[in-house]
Amino acid sequence: MDFRIEKDLLGEKEIDKSAYFGINTKRALENFELPGKIVNLNLIREIALIKKAAAMVNKNLKELNKDKADAIIKASDEIIDGKFDDEFKLSAFQGGAGTSTNMNVNEVIANRAIEILGGEKGDYNLVHPLNDVNMSQSTNDVYPTALRIAAIHLIRRLSTSLADLQDELQIKENEFSDIIKLGRTELMDALPMMAGQGFGAYAKAISRDRWRIYKSEERLREINIGGTAIGTGLNATNRFAYEITDIIQNLTGLGMARSDYPMDGTENCDVFVEVSGLLKSLACNLLKISNDLRLLNSGPKGGIGEIILPEVQAGSTIMPGKVNPVIAEMVGQVSMKVIANDTAITMACSAGQLELNAFTPLIADCLLESLELLDGAVIIFKEKCIKDIKVNEENCRKNLERSTAAAAALVHYIGYDRAGKVAKMALKENKTIKEVLYKEKILSEEKIDKIINPYELTKPGIPGK
Amino acid sequence: MDFRIEKDLLGEKEIDKSAYFGINTKRALENFELPGKIVNLNLIREIALIKKAAAMVNKNLKELNKDKADAIIKASDEIIDGKFDDEFKLSAFQGGAGTSTNMNVNEVIANRAIEILGGEKGDYNLVHPLNDVNMSQSTNDVYPTALRIAAIHLIRRLSTSLADLQDELQIKENEFSDIIKLGRTELMDALPMMAGQGFGAYAKAISRDRWRIYKSEERLREINIGGTAIGTGLNATNRFAYEITDIIQNLTGLGMARSDYPMDGTENCDVFVEVSGLLKSLACNLLKISNDLRLLNSGPKGGIGEIILPEVQAGSTIMPGKVNPVIAEMVGQVSMKVIANDTAITMACSAGQLELNAFTPLIADCLLESLELLDGAVIIFKEKCIKDIKVNEENCRKNLERSTAAAAALVHYIGYDRAGKVAKMALKENKTIKEVLYKEKILSEEKIDKIINPYELTKPGIPGK
Amino acid sequence: MDFRIEKDLLGEKEIDKSAYFGINTKRALENFELPGKIVNLNLIREIALIKKAAAMVNKNLKELNKDKADAIIKASDEIIDGKFDDEFKLSAFQGGAGTSTNMNVNEVIANRAIEILGGEKGDYNLVHPLNDVNMSQSTNDVYPTALRIAAIHLIRRLSTSLADLQDELQIKENEFSDIIKLGRTELMDALPMMAGQGFGAYAKAISRDRWRIYKSEERLREINIGGTAIGTGLNATNRFAYEITDIIQNLTGLGMARSDYPMDGTENCDVFVEVSGLLKSLACNLLKISNDLRLLNSGPKGGIGEIILPEVQAGSTIMPGKVNPVIAEMVGQVSMKVIANDTAITMACSAGQLELNAFTPLIADCLLESLELLDGAVIIFKEKCIKDIKVNEENCRKNLERSTAAAAALVHYIGYDRAGKVAKMALKENKTIKEVLYKEKILSEEKIDKIINPYELTKPGIPGK
Amino acid sequence: MDFRIEKDLLGEKEIDKSAYFGINTKRALENFELPGKIVNLNLIREIALIKKAAAMVNKNLKELNKDKADAIIKASDEIIDGKFDDEFKLSAFQGGAGTSTNMNVNEVIANRAIEILGGEKGDYNLVHPLNDVNMSQSTNDVYPTALRIAAIHLIRRLSTSLADLQDELQIKENEFSDIIKLGRTELMDALPMMAGQGFGAYAKAISRDRWRIYKSEERLREINIGGTAIGTGLNATNRFAYEITDIIQNLTGLGMARSDYPMDGTENCDVFVEVSGLLKSLACNLLKISNDLRLLNSGPKGGIGEIILPEVQAGSTIMPGKVNPVIAEMVGQVSMKVIANDTAITMACSAGQLELNAFTPLIADCLLESLELLDGAVIIFKEKCIKDIKVNEENCRKNLERSTAAAAALVHYIGYDRAGKVAKMALKENKTIKEVLYKEKILSEEKIDKIINPYELTKPGIPGK
Repeated sequence: MDFRIEKDLLGEKEIDKSAYFGINTKRALENFELPGKIVNLNLIREIALIKKAAAMVNKNLKELNKDKADAIIKASDEIIDGKFDDEFKLSAFQGGAGTSTNMNVNEVIANRAIEILGGEKGDYNLVHPLNDVNMSQSTNDVYPTALRIAAIHLIRRLSTSLADLQDELQIKENEFSDIIKLGRTELMDALPMMAGQGFGAYAKAISRDRWRIYKSEERLREINIGGTAIGTGLNATNRFAYEITDIIQNLTGLGMARSDYPMDGTENCDVFVEVSGLLKSLACNLLKISNDLRLLNSGPKGGIGEIILPEVQAGSTIMPGKVNPVIAEMVGQVSMKVIANDTAITMACSAGQLELNAFTPLIADCLLESLELLDGAVIIFKEKCIKDIKVNEENCRKNLERSTAAAAALVHYIGYDRAGKVAKMALKENKTIKEVLYKEKILSEEKIDKIINPYELTKPGIPGK
Repeated sequence: MDFRIEKDLLGEKEIDKSAYFGINTKRALENFELPGKIVNLNLIREIALIKKAAAMVNKNLKELNKDKADAIIKASDEIIDGKFDDEFKLSAFQGGAGTSTNMNVNEVIANRAIEILGGEKGDYNLVHPLNDVNMSQSTNDVYPTALRIAAIHLIRRLSTSLADLQDELQIKENEFSDIIKLGRTELMDALPMMAGQGFGAYAKAISRDRWRIYKSEERLREINIGGTAIGTGLNATNRFAYEITDIIQNLTGLGMARSDYPMDGTENCDVFVEVSGLLKSLACNLLKISNDLRLLNSGPKGGIGEIILPEVQAGSTIMPGKVNPVIAEMVGQVSMKVIANDTAITMACSAGQLELNAFTPLIADCLLESLELLDGAVIIFKEKCIKDIKVNEENCRKNLERSTAAAAALVHYIGYDRAGKVAKMALKENKTIKEVLYKEKILSEEKIDKIINPYELTKPGIPGK
Repeated sequence: MDFRIEKDLLGEKEIDKSAYFGINTKRALENFELPGKIVNLNLIREIALIKKAAAMVNKNLKELNKDKADAIIKASDEIIDGKFDDEFKLSAFQGGAGTSTNMNVNEVIANRAIEILGGEKGDYNLVHPLNDVNMSQSTNDVYPTALRIAAIHLIRRLSTSLADLQDELQIKENEFSDIIKLGRTELMDALPMMAGQGFGAYAKAISRDRWRIYKSEERLREINIGGTAIGTGLNATNRFAYEITDIIQNLTGLGMARSDYPMDGTENCDVFVEVSGLLKSLACNLLKISNDLRLLNSGPKGGIGEIILPEVQAGSTIMPGKVNPVIAEMVGQVSMKVIANDTAITMACSAGQLELNAFTPLIADCLLESLELLDGAVIIFKEKCIKDIKVNEENCRKNLERSTAAAAALVHYIGYDRAGKVAKMALKENKTIKEVLYKEKILSEEKIDKIINPYELTKPGIPGK
Repeated sequence: MDFRIEKDLLGEKEIDKSAYFGINTKRALENFELPGKIVNLNLIREIALIKKAAAMVNKNLKELNKDKADAIIKASDEIIDGKFDDEFKLSAFQGGAGTSTNMNVNEVIANRAIEILGGEKGDYNLVHPLNDVNMSQSTNDVYPTALRIAAIHLIRRLSTSLADLQDELQIKENEFSDIIKLGRTELMDALPMMAGQGFGAYAKAISRDRWRIYKSEERLREINIGGTAIGTGLNATNRFAYEITDIIQNLTGLGMARSDYPMDGTENCDVFVEVSGLLKSLACNLLKISNDLRLLNSGPKGGIGEIILPEVQAGSTIMPGKVNPVIAEMVGQVSMKVIANDTAITMACSAGQLELNAFTPLIADCLLESLELLDGAVIIFKEKCIKDIKVNEENCRKNLERSTAAAAALVHYIGYDRAGKVAKMALKENKTIKEVLYKEKILSEEKIDKIINPYELTKPGIPGK
């Protein structure tokens, strides 16, 4: 017989003897038996950290005896270290506002603590998942607090990755600062610019993302731990709330602060919408940049071909020698995924009711996924794409020379309408602006040469003046 | 004194004497005093049509006396003809599931009918907006029924516009059927194709949209009129429900059918999500096609430049002679707007509660806007963009010749790996595939000439076999 | 030394000797090293099925020798049977329009076939992943074809689950057909109805979903296999295309049909948007129904409390005895996730460019996830929630009796305005409509009793007439 | 003859003599002949303000003679004052990245300035729309700059409205601070709380929105004016750029700052996504709050009925006396619309290409609409809904008394499992927790009375300790 029997108000259940989780987890595994995603382990670890902190406070406050508390602390540390990852297999999409996940952690800690104390799994007289491990807590304060901590850790990682990406883009800005090329608006030939300037504009956008995301940590620091079920603090003393916040600060090294209105953190999820919205801004920038790079890289012969993305893998099963911009495409897909996750977070947040949001598990899953995917994508983007971009100077030059980009420089001298006619003529006769001006003798040759200087055209001011 | 006084359970209100609307509309104008969009007039007219139909039935059933009924019918016709458009200025975003809009139509009809009968506006003893004009009806059956009729009319218009667009794309397919060009996958040079084939693929997508949208009419035909407030039919006899459905059929010429479960139509809005979802498919196709055209048109000199979109307006206030693909860009924006409207419709539909969806005004506004915008954009796209597209044969030829598109044809003969090396060599040495093959003597010249025939490469089968 | 060396145009790579995948997969694992989701195995299996079908055709056409073909077929069967699931660990978010996944399948089949033929993994002279396994194919026809097949299989499963859900809702409709309760519009007391009618309205919505989703299979049947890289069919003969379609039909038992314009299926993804849009309609209905059930179940004492959802697990870590509607909440979250996936699919589809959509891996992942999640959620919803719903008749009765739902029945007799006053009076004095009518002697007692009959009020017609 | 003839590179057009707009506007009216929305007038006025500022600088720099400049300034002022609103009828969905709208303003100013100078409309030798009015500018710097200014003005308005809403919610928090009621999680009876606490939690959420939106102004302050077409500044001197920024600061009273990298502001739209994302957070909060209020107001007799929303209009055309929470529903719809607008803005921003985003008109329309709608809705919400909310103390008391909310207080004394049994028993036997405890003699009566004190249960700590 390999099972132990556990009981709750609904009846009995057989639990595999080797399992550290208990009856509540077992029921949840059955209730939410969905294919695919399971609860993000980053979240599990932060819940375990809160359990550890709670045991430390309760030991201190003499609510938990030392042995029990120490066993809970040790068991929590093991979860934090990833030793029990296999015990956490609940679906990411679970009812109950995270109760099942909290129960899951409570049970694994309780059973592991029981073992540590020399008992046998399931003997909850030794350590009880709810009376002891969950003491002074509720899912409704533990779960949002853990989500905030998990999110901040990932935000810091992402913020660093973005700084690296920005640096790399600025390196490219400098590297290509002397290569003149055609700038395009609405995909049409517009004005001359330096190849480096394009990367500078990307760096500027990413620097904003970096700042935004770095600052978004502040919004997440306020935690409702100690508020328990609906934020009123029933069953948790003010002292517990203050001390656990301090300990969480110490354990995480993050500036977490106790909410002055814990009911807020229990029922309102707008900060997650805010953070996700900022991630969406980043996603928009990444999508834009990756699309631009794919466009400028198009060809190699029959496209724009002004930059050359590094080759990272064969591109086709049927077209030998074809290489595709797969990293940029992956970045694009991650961006779209992040935008889609924002839809889910928005819907879930707005569907909160009264004193709790029942859909926090969806919010948690989508937010942490977006953070992890963006971090991964940004690192790869930098390492496998941006870093080794080359500019095809010859194509840059050719595309610029063929264009009528210089016509705008004439407005000051001959007015918009006549300058338009010159441009039209150039296009029609397949000539450069200069050639038309010479031929039509609209200005003196000296003047023409002074005005139509592509390098001059990339800088502020009226060319030739 | 230019006001008349009207009364309801909440008290009295001054109404401008010239106004045909009454106290309920007045309150709603004040309650929903938002800037911007007002109720779509297409909806107003179909509500008036239902009022007319109800009066016809109630006259027939002797519930309304002939004079009153005829006055109501005449007044309804005038609204349908657009004579009272200025009386309908309620915000599109109104609480009450459309009650205010229904009240607005009831009141305008009542007051106009009173006038027709020789009375003075506001004398509801002559014709009462609710007892008479709204007899046997509720907003909750009138409004969804009117929305379905309005949507079907617009669907038919859009369906015709799509047929025209498809025709025009097929004309282009034929027109360019002999012009060989480079096909691109992931924006990279891939295989040769005919310029016409690209337009054929667009036509195929649009033909699916046309079919989908044409068929979506069927989903909208089932109406809940006669179900009154919650679909149970209180205050409307079965005979009323049957007769009004027949009359609506006759008046509209559409195959509207009485729902066998009117409660369904009162509370469930999934058909609007379905139709909006299909409009979204169209929007995706339009976005894709318009983006492709912008891409192929890019240049004119420094881009791909394989097609030439018609010039419809000057493109820049600073760059003379610049022409932009503004029609394609407008089509793209309308597409994005339609996708955004789908978000609103989805949220509103999923937020329905129990026996009614309180958010139907949002659904109505977004759905009718999407239909109208798409119809307008499709017509303009065809007339001002597709119809006059030209292909730049020279650029098509150049882009193809420079590329290594022919390498895929070698797989059958020398295997993927060697073919890949040939392609690499061609790129590196700036040669064509043929030139490399000749030089490297990988195959006999005769064989090479037989295999590397671009026209052959645009058709099924192994080239040279 | 546990590695073998493989080579491609970019250089050499060490591959773990035990691995069946080869250098292209290895590079893709490194290029797309993202946390989280990997390619959906449903897709992998259908790609393997296409490889099998291609080998059968190529054997038949004498393009592949019998031994090689048979080994490929056997290896493909093993993948279909799930024996090599561990070889498919690529990120779901990959650049290359699915090329890496196709490469992955090609390589695993090739190496397994080599083994079957007695060779050693990596000896591609025996069986070549591209020349042999991928013969006459391209990712761009294989991948969309496999996605369509995978989607249809899941659609059929979901369609069956929906039929079961509809049946169960109709069982409830009958079970509760005699229990009278209060109907609500905009959450406010409206009219009497039967408890069963509410479930009937849900059944009607789900029956539409079932039909829609069942029919959506038709849109997916058209496959572009044989179109190869851009739909022109280069390197695949017409005979290959026809025969492989027949074999796919036989192997899958599905009515797959060869596209008459394969370029369409290569570049246009609107059918996936269409199907996803229909799944979104289902999601909206599920969200609405699950929200309604949670609302009607609210309490048990301090809410509406008209229905009782089955208890499936303890609801709180701090509030003993609390039971939550976790299944309904899970259904809500899955619905929101499906709506979010639709956002991703819409963005990815609309971002297709020219002859291919580079973002198909995102489309595939989101579409298959939505289908799998919906199927799982619908089954659980039925089994663990709908099936055992009870109605609390006493609460239904009390809520109805307290309300002024009967006032609407008076409109026919005393007009809207006076009926409104009666209702107001009832609310103010905390009386029933009947009590007010008696007291105010507005109608004869006999008449009152005839009109105010709640059962009568749940049916079409004018009560008391 | 009521027309004048104007000319551009595409040919001639008849323009109505009375029209102030010219040929470019005329073409755009025809090209974007879509039903529905026109360009937001807030944007038009800020463009006119920039024209005025540019004329002031150019006068100062002696690029424009005094008379011309003064006429342009006067004409601009008239547009700012709304005197020419009828001249701006272009569709909100226009290709060209705003060029047509910029042309529209240029032309109206030019023609009005011509009139001021005593000339006849159309005589552009006097004042030229491009050479003079648009001098040193491009649509691509004018348009994003104007959008930023327009957005900031609306942000300030919204920010004030939010402050008022927050104040009102806090007034309610205080007003109801002594009324005890049932708190609910997942819609199920949870713990006691004060009615005021609920409003306090809403106030907290709105205070965050207020702060966020107030701060978002900072992100919009950086303007790219002087960057002209692609941000390189061609045709605008550095002096022009500095001086116009100063003047814009003076004219608007806003802290606008010249971008140190104008190319960024021309091509990157992420700040608009950021601001829209923050508006979406507000929308989520408003949706949540308005839904909560509707829920708590449900009834009046057959629902939760704990609060009473003010009556603002009759609620039904068929159910007399029915009053609906129409303001809250309107707020919900505006929220959904804002979320939908965010979808459009996200798509448009991410679709930017190279040196410009062609879809800025969609971004502008959606962002300004969201800001205006939110401001309107927030004001109405406060005035017509929040301000006059009443609490139904009797219903609050009844709902709480009936519930088992007190069971959680027992965990500390008898453990989670036994407390659960007490709660179950209370529900089953329709007793209060206290009654069960008394009867079962689980604790001393004195102890019971000390623990089960609902007011105590609304505060932090272990009740009875």
